[in-house]
Amino acid sequence: MIDKNGQIVRPDFVELSEYAKVFSSLNSEKEALLRDIAKDMAPRLNEVTEHFYEILQSIPQALPYLEGRTDALKKTHLKWMQSLFTGPFDAAYTESMYDVGDVHVKVNLPVEFMSGGITLICNELYRIIHELYQADPKRAADAVSAISSVMGYSLLIMQKSYNASVEEQLDKFLLITGMSRALFDKLASTFKVLL
Amino acid sequence: MIDKNGQIVRPDFVELSEYAKVFSSLNSEKEALLRDIAKDMAPRLNEVTEHFYEILQSIPQALPYLEGRTDALKKTHLKWMQSLFTGPFDAAYTESMYDVGDVHVKVNLPVEFMSGGITLICNELYRIIHELYQADPKRAADAVSAISSVMGYSLLIMQKSYNASVEEQLDKFLLITGMSRALFDKLASTFKVLL
Repeated sequence: MIDKNGQIVRPDFVELSEYAKVFSSLNSEKEALLRDIAKDMAPRLNEVTEHFYEILQSIPQALPYLEGRTDALKKTHLKWMQSLFTGPFDAAYTESMYDVGDVHVKVNLPVEFMSGGITLICNELYRIIHELYQADPKRAADAVSAISSVMGYSLLIMQKSYNASVEEQLDKFLLITGMSRALFDKLASTFKVLL
Repeated sequence: MIDKNGQIVRPDFVELSEYAKVFSSLNSEKEALLRDIAKDMAPRLNEVTEHFYEILQSIPQALPYLEGRTDALKKTHLKWMQSLFTGPFDAAYTESMYDVGDVHVKVNLPVEFMSGGITLICNELYRIIHELYQADPKRAADAVSAISSVMGYSLLIMQKSYNASVEEQLDKFLLITGMSRALFDKLASTFKVLL
């Protein structure tokens, strides 16, 4: 969102964290469990990052975003993967994920890359979890639940910011032309008649 | 996207299905597994739908979308839940999910409700899976993987259409005003100077 002076309005990140936690059921027990399994997961995370970029390489629509920067992207990705098992998932984490969403819209990344990417990563993490804890079904269940929550949490925040950035474009247009939102909606709904 | 006559361009749903399947790794083995666990899951799906709307009721931002229509929404939701265990996840399913994304943007649903909602539902489904198959870790792992894929697949399609609808607003604006995209981008990037 932008205000009447064209300034981008940043959300209240404490509030946004609370909101995202209700949807994703990320809570302190799940955060503790993620820290607890960190040492088991750490040696496997590079494998997740490698798999992620291998699949992306097979998607023609993804190639323009990868060319010449895969190594740098992999490093950032792995660092993020590691942060999922340390936390904390506080306002600062929320703000950093919000900025990741912003970067994605700035490079014109299609929105579905974010949900698609999260699914890709989740699938790999669940596979590893079930492999690691096959003898301990309770731990496997708890770990899947915690990962699902933290990934859902991160995706929600990224998408919130992505959508805000897209809507800023329309806000800017209204501001430039001096057109009201009501007039725009009216024109948009009748514009087929106008043509 | 809209064409130069203001007509909305629908995507090629066969192509979109293929694209979404690469991201979500939804394949015929996973589809078969979903059909296979359908009879175990069927008696539990109502519980997932009830839990979903119970949590939504606790989110103030969700209330305006629920008032007076929760019963109708629950019915549609349960029907969709059931369809996840029957398939097929073909172009027709993709088209129906694309239309669900459209409906969501038409009622002004915030974009993060979709990823948040999917996380909420996944968490419940994984909990039930681990409960049902605690004595069979291989089956639990396969079921989680199949559900993660089909939910990721559905989310990707819904979001693709949601974003297309949001961008149509800007396309309409350009069409109404006769402004080129290049001019808009130029104005948008310098509009702070113009104010």
